[in-house]
Amino acid sequence: MDNSIDQQVSAQLETIKRGVVDIIPEDELKNKLYNSIKNHKPLRIKLGLDPTAPDIHLGHTVVLNKLRQFQDLGHEVHLIIGDFTARIGDPSGKSETRKQLSAEQIAVNAATYQEQIFKVLDKNKTIIHYNSEWLQNMNLVDVLSLAGKYTVARMLERDDFSKRYKEGMPIGVHEFMYPLMQGYDSVELQADVEMGGTDQTFNLLVGRNLQREYGQEPQIALTMPILEGTDGVQKMSKSLGNYIGVNEEPNEIFGKTMSITDDLICRYFELVTRVPMSEINEMKTRMEKGELNPRDAKIKLAKAIIAIFYNEEEADKAEERFKLIFSKHDIPDDIPAIQTTEKEVWLPKFLLEHGMVQSASDGRRMLQQEAVKVNGNKQTEENLILENDMVIQVGKRKFLKIILND
Amino acid sequence: MDNSIDQQVSAQLETIKRGVVDIIPEDELKNKLYNSIKNHKPLRIKLGLDPTAPDIHLGHTVVLNKLRQFQDLGHEVHLIIGDFTARIGDPSGKSETRKQLSAEQIAVNAATYQEQIFKVLDKNKTIIHYNSEWLQNMNLVDVLSLAGKYTVARMLERDDFSKRYKEGMPIGVHEFMYPLMQGYDSVELQADVEMGGTDQTFNLLVGRNLQREYGQEPQIALTMPILEGTDGVQKMSKSLGNYIGVNEEPNEIFGKTMSITDDLICRYFELVTRVPMSEINEMKTRMEKGELNPRDAKIKLAKAIIAIFYNEEEADKAEERFKLIFSKHDIPDDIPAIQTTEKEVWLPKFLLEHGMVQSASDGRRMLQQEAVKVNGNKQTEENLILENDMVIQVGKRKFLKIILND
Repeated sequence: MDNSIDQQVSAQLETIKRGVVDIIPEDELKNKLYNSIKNHKPLRIKLGLDPTAPDIHLGHTVVLNKLRQFQDLGHEVHLIIGDFTARIGDPSGKSETRKQLSAEQIAVNAATYQEQIFKVLDKNKTIIHYNSEWLQNMNLVDVLSLAGKYTVARMLERDDFSKRYKEGMPIGVHEFMYPLMQGYDSVELQADVEMGGTDQTFNLLVGRNLQREYGQEPQIALTMPILEGTDGVQKMSKSLGNYIGVNEEPNEIFGKTMSITDDLICRYFELVTRVPMSEINEMKTRMEKGELNPRDAKIKLAKAIIAIFYNEEEADKAEERFKLIFSKHDIPDDIPAIQTTEKEVWLPKFLLEHGMVQSASDGRRMLQQEAVKVNGNKQTEENLILENDMVIQVGKRKFLKIILND
Repeated sequence: MDNSIDQQVSAQLETIKRGVVDIIPEDELKNKLYNSIKNHKPLRIKLGLDPTAPDIHLGHTVVLNKLRQFQDLGHEVHLIIGDFTARIGDPSGKSETRKQLSAEQIAVNAATYQEQIFKVLDKNKTIIHYNSEWLQNMNLVDVLSLAGKYTVARMLERDDFSKRYKEGMPIGVHEFMYPLMQGYDSVELQADVEMGGTDQTFNLLVGRNLQREYGQEPQIALTMPILEGTDGVQKMSKSLGNYIGVNEEPNEIFGKTMSITDDLICRYFELVTRVPMSEINEMKTRMEKGELNPRDAKIKLAKAIIAIFYNEEEADKAEERFKLIFSKHDIPDDIPAIQTTEKEVWLPKFLLEHGMVQSASDGRRMLQQEAVKVNGNKQTEENLILENDMVIQVGKRKFLKIILND
């Protein structure tokens, strides 16, 4: 072993390990990095993408950010657009998550995807594949050969399969083919590393085992955590309304970031930004000692995120606008925010639902007593048309910021 | 409903029900028969054949005999040669029963099969298909669509899958495809009835369910019992050496039939011959009353079997030869027979193994005392070269007939 290469391996490994949940197995990754440096041959890092849901949010960027780190270390990113499965949908017609898409829809989604993905990834070090390239040419003989490389018992070890089987919920026989198809993508690509969230561990290991069966050096499974949403409780998801979208306006991203709970600050920094770990750890210590106001850390975080998706200039502008609005209305600038799709609300009920009054009649009393303010102005009307960035205040200390989602 | 058609349905049903284990479901079969008679449209009766094992014995003719009955009632028999699966073998390489065969081997086996099958079936009412015709054109989309019509839980209900799963024995994912492929054959054929042994019930029902999924009237699953071998204990099988082969010489068939245990006589008559049930039941009663010697019933059975595989003349000749040999040597003509592939044996051990002496030394003593006869001649040599039809006698009452298998 060459000592200078060893040092480079260690340096790369430190970057790669930032924020990861699992590297299976780490010693094989070390070998791969060693050979990559020695032979000046970049590793092939794979990520599969489902073209049915083209809206990317901060939760998705956890994996993208790691891919970007691999690129910055000189490696190659291979994105697999799962157009084959999207085009056929769910043949049993029973799964709502596997909608059937037309070739046009897939092309549009793939374009939307790329536009968003390249806000994080380096386009020059990214190669895009469509898995229909190889899957559509498979015949029954190929399929049986592929399926013969895995056992039913091992498939049933996958958490969701195991759960559904035990609970008597149906699992279509075709569903056993999907992990195999995803795994076969790794064989076609000769992937060195496949990335995914922790919910993908099983599928990544299928790829690893299939490569071995097909006589290849098996890939490393590298999993990243699932990011919590702005509420700090559930995983970030568009349907739960606790997300920050990659395509959102800088001001929107700024406001949503300011609304996250304090315990998420360092986690977001680590997983979605490029701020060095040393700096993050320092902020953490200073916040614990009370030397750094979490509000200031959040401003830094919001700007770091905007800088990734837009640029430094947009980050500065968003900060200025945010401070202006909140100072003008004499409103604290890190108040809880709720995301909603409601356009018009009946305030007594709305205030109750968000814990700002004790009951609906308490809400009506507050309105009558002029104890409710909207954007700093007294509110007596019981009906309110919601607007984005609107701040609702009850009494002196209860604030709520509205973030309107489509 | 037309009364005269109803009578015809009842008559057909009586023939069809002879010897069957299950008709799933019987009322649907009645409807199919009714419509068949009314519209002068024969039913399509399906049987799948595995071209890896071209030697047909009496056990296989149980199903063939039922198919012949269908033909005699005016229906059409469709044989599916499973050449597709035979050609690919077992892709996981783990199953010894699914050998991979070349196209030439399959053609040879199929020809051998047909030559034997048409000893029982009516060639003019038999249509032969190769399932590669439709299976080789399936792509991954078709496969997923097929697999999506069945659940993992239902697959695991199949006895052998369930057993292996519980015992921790591996089941390849591809193995779940085989019943689906067999079932898909029924869809392609638009089969009305699929036949098989009782070990095929699950697979036949898969075909039934798939036809329903593909919008067809589902087939009837009709199962026949597994025939016991000449030993009356285990199922008839070439490897167990207790079989009567379709291609064996008439004298061979005669001798083996005479060696079966008495309790098998009526069962063999019912399942493999065309002798009317009324006649079989009469023989049964007469044997129970002691009016009919089982030996005479066996002679009738042997002749009925030879008449099917050859003709009446050969049946008569075999009877004559058999009687001649046994009267000449003063040997009772229904003595136990054993099938063996051994060419030369050491008699003390051989006699012990077949329960004719108490121990090997007892065997040596018997030989020394000239108490052992071979084909009526005294035997003192301890080594013996076995011949077909050879009769070994120990003392006055113990006889054993040798049937040499290749």
